[in-house]
Amino acid sequence: MLSQRLRYAALQDRVVTAEEAASWIEDGMTLGMSGFTAAGDVKVIPLALVERAKKLGKPFKVNVYTGASINSKIDGVLAESGIVNIRLPYQSEKRMRAALNNGDVCYIDQHLSHTAELLRSGAIPPVDVALIEAIAITEEGYIVPTTSVGNSHIFVAQAKEVIIELNMAQPLALEGLHDVYDPGHQGHRQPIPLTEAGQRVGTTAIAVDPAKIRGIVITNQPDVSSAIVPPDEETEQMAQHLLNFLKDEVAAGRLGPNLAPLQSGVGSVANAVFHGFLNSEFRDLEVYSEVLQDSVFQLLDAGKIKMASGCSFTLSPKTNEFVMENLDKYRDKLVLRPQEISNNPGLIRRLGLIAINTALEVDIYGHVNSTHVMGTQMMNGIGGSGDFARNARLTFFCTKSYAKNGKISSIVPMCSHVDHTEHDVDIIVTEQGLADLRGLSPRERAKRIIDNCSHPSYRPLLQAYYEEAVARGGHTPHIIEKALSFHARYVQTGSMLE
Amino acid sequence: MLSQRLRYAALQDRVVTAEEAASWIEDGMTLGMSGFTAAGDVKVIPLALVERAKKLGKPFKVNVYTGASINSKIDGVLAESGIVNIRLPYQSEKRMRAALNNGDVCYIDQHLSHTAELLRSGAIPPVDVALIEAIAITEEGYIVPTTSVGNSHIFVAQAKEVIIELNMAQPLALEGLHDVYDPGHQGHRQPIPLTEAGQRVGTTAIAVDPAKIRGIVITNQPDVSSAIVPPDEETEQMAQHLLNFLKDEVAAGRLGPNLAPLQSGVGSVANAVFHGFLNSEFRDLEVYSEVLQDSVFQLLDAGKIKMASGCSFTLSPKTNEFVMENLDKYRDKLVLRPQEISNNPGLIRRLGLIAINTALEVDIYGHVNSTHVMGTQMMNGIGGSGDFARNARLTFFCTKSYAKNGKISSIVPMCSHVDHTEHDVDIIVTEQGLADLRGLSPRERAKRIIDNCSHPSYRPLLQAYYEEAVARGGHTPHIIEKALSFHARYVQTGSMLE
Repeated sequence: MLSQRLRYAALQDRVVTAEEAASWIEDGMTLGMSGFTAAGDVKVIPLALVERAKKLGKPFKVNVYTGASINSKIDGVLAESGIVNIRLPYQSEKRMRAALNNGDVCYIDQHLSHTAELLRSGAIPPVDVALIEAIAITEEGYIVPTTSVGNSHIFVAQAKEVIIELNMAQPLALEGLHDVYDPGHQGHRQPIPLTEAGQRVGTTAIAVDPAKIRGIVITNQPDVSSAIVPPDEETEQMAQHLLNFLKDEVAAGRLGPNLAPLQSGVGSVANAVFHGFLNSEFRDLEVYSEVLQDSVFQLLDAGKIKMASGCSFTLSPKTNEFVMENLDKYRDKLVLRPQEISNNPGLIRRLGLIAINTALEVDIYGHVNSTHVMGTQMMNGIGGSGDFARNARLTFFCTKSYAKNGKISSIVPMCSHVDHTEHDVDIIVTEQGLADLRGLSPRERAKRIIDNCSHPSYRPLLQAYYEEAVARGGHTPHIIEKALSFHARYVQTGSMLE
Repeated sequence: MLSQRLRYAALQDRVVTAEEAASWIEDGMTLGMSGFTAAGDVKVIPLALVERAKKLGKPFKVNVYTGASINSKIDGVLAESGIVNIRLPYQSEKRMRAALNNGDVCYIDQHLSHTAELLRSGAIPPVDVALIEAIAITEEGYIVPTTSVGNSHIFVAQAKEVIIELNMAQPLALEGLHDVYDPGHQGHRQPIPLTEAGQRVGTTAIAVDPAKIRGIVITNQPDVSSAIVPPDEETEQMAQHLLNFLKDEVAAGRLGPNLAPLQSGVGSVANAVFHGFLNSEFRDLEVYSEVLQDSVFQLLDAGKIKMASGCSFTLSPKTNEFVMENLDKYRDKLVLRPQEISNNPGLIRRLGLIAINTALEVDIYGHVNSTHVMGTQMMNGIGGSGDFARNARLTFFCTKSYAKNGKISSIVPMCSHVDHTEHDVDIIVTEQGLADLRGLSPRERAKRIIDNCSHPSYRPLLQAYYEEAVARGGHTPHIIEKALSFHARYVQTGSMLE
């Protein structure tokens, strides 16, 4: 029943087709689109917009801002159509990736907590039109988001016009899970009152002047769930190293039996680690993260996690179906927040998070590359990893010690691109082992990373580099003309091995 | 009169010589010493400790934690004596620099807001003995710091024993300026209530169980002030670029006429910028910074600044003398805080700071090296620059476009060490001009930095590199085997010029 979902009567005559909504979007506009990791993204208007641009048959460009990645179909079609000028703050789609690596799209790879602040301060072009997926419009005309909050609140606040995709396939039972808090302008804001991972500090809908809602498009499509890579032998080894380390920290009295609120990035390693908690002795855990994946729900079901806060659900089709049908069971254990709150540096430090993220490569001194293959080709983006790594109590970066069947070593003399500096990285984990870098000088770190984390086939090369570098001296010894030699060799020969 | 300064009667019989105090310090201990940028540091016990170690005539090592740099004499003598194992979180002394670059001292270069958290979480060896300079011990036995607060509160809280240097040369009129706030343990803390730069949220003394105060050494030595480099033509040009930019931001409505609370690093550029405010139309400015230098007091005198918060005073001898004799004039306009509060990420973002710091080198994509000459030799350390850059509303990095009489270009294809990533850097300033990187993709940034900021003698080399790199492609184009070629050439030939 539409009236259950569209409760502000005056808006009922604004229901339009996707084509009509798209016709309001003009060349040069900036669009703020809901969606975080393919959850809660708008699903039909962007496609209608691409069709409109084709029909127009003249140059047509828009800026596309989102929460994070959106479903592949949309980002892919947008990239192929050539209508995207600026894309921010994150993407993970192969056609969009190709377009930005070609220089066809101006991609701005941002910390996910930054976008809202940059919009408030006028540092990036303002949002003209917000396109927001909703499960309902409340009696006040407010917007109830679906499976993510992301940047939707700031897009709605800043846009001159808001267009809603009211998605009948997203269960109305999601209502009440959201906690929308807008900190206000810098220099004029109060402390965010949150002191516990599961605390509610905001509202369950995005406040908006209903007059700004120009149109409502009715849709009926579930989120396009991402394929979650199951744990393999090596990700399980990494998870085991990490869990053993946490056990040792508890034994040493540096962490309590309930650890500290957990954050984990998206992907197979994070899933393997969370899976590892299932069979661990840890209990009453809390999650304060960005994306809530399948493993969080398994841990909730097993009674291991008592509370989980995030800014989106990214679930496999099977888990998604189960969760959406059983939301009442999870209702008092879940909170969905704007990404500037889930990833807020002040809150991350206040809560003292344990942050677990994935590295693309790590150098022997503990710098981390999360984004650029061989220093040049953008993979996805930094996402929230910097927000968490920089401010967490314990910062882990995980990576297999090698890639491309051993042709690439993930441990290198010097990172070809740095997203996280030595100052922000506590612990490196590979399938080979774990390097606790806390309280170590660079030379001590190098020995530990090479010994504990590098792949045996690259270890002698790394040791030789380090020894030659130490002979030259310096706080962070390097042979500057060979610091990127692993990468140069790969570019030239297709392998980092000599 | 000692009784004015030592008001807790039971402590009066604990007055000892520096030698006796030093005799309590054993091999293997960790010392937490007051001092931030050569302000408020302990001045006699460390020297007595070096003498003690010499007389012992056997291996003797201690870990030395401070707020930031301490006066050169102390760090230099400590380095020469060879008694330092771990040194953190910052130093700026040539003998200490040599020792850590040799690998003789394990230097841990930390964000200055991190040290207290690392101590709380047990990530680094705990402090055994706190050595704290004070102007007074209160009636309750609490410690009133001198010209800096730094990490003293956490050292005192964690140490098993506290030794005070009660410095009669530091004016008692400093009492009341400090605002000591300890946020408590992560996961168990309330929001820090501060919402304005000048707000007081803590206490004017460091609380301590007086039973922990094992000894009090009476001293009478002013701080050893750092030589402040006066503005030269080029730093004045940089200041002008920066001020013009701020004026344009006000004109564009992105900043108000009072700007936003200002932070500036230590050094000649920062001083030149602050000097530039003297003759600007800006008024009612606020400072929320780490170190308050001469220029802050000039601006206070001129009525340009209405409030200044920092964690230390680092003044020239002349300004120091004037300020210390006229503290009442400044009393309601100054606050001195612990460095974890002055540099707190949550507060920096909440207040929306304008952060102005110095770079050693900058690459064409906007990464910044603040610490390592040619990627290997530590200069000083990252200090607070990362705390501010990462969380400020506007992040500037300033550097002359060249160094060593033109043999070094401060703008390079790729930084030889990264302390601040592209994600955190908004604006680059050299004497050549200013590059506003906000909202730009890497390729756009490269063009702007090369065109606006590089020295003309290096511009063609940088342009040629960039063009060759773009021909290879990528989101962040590089010729990986030449990315560090400027540095390699300098190491080989003594100049980055071809």
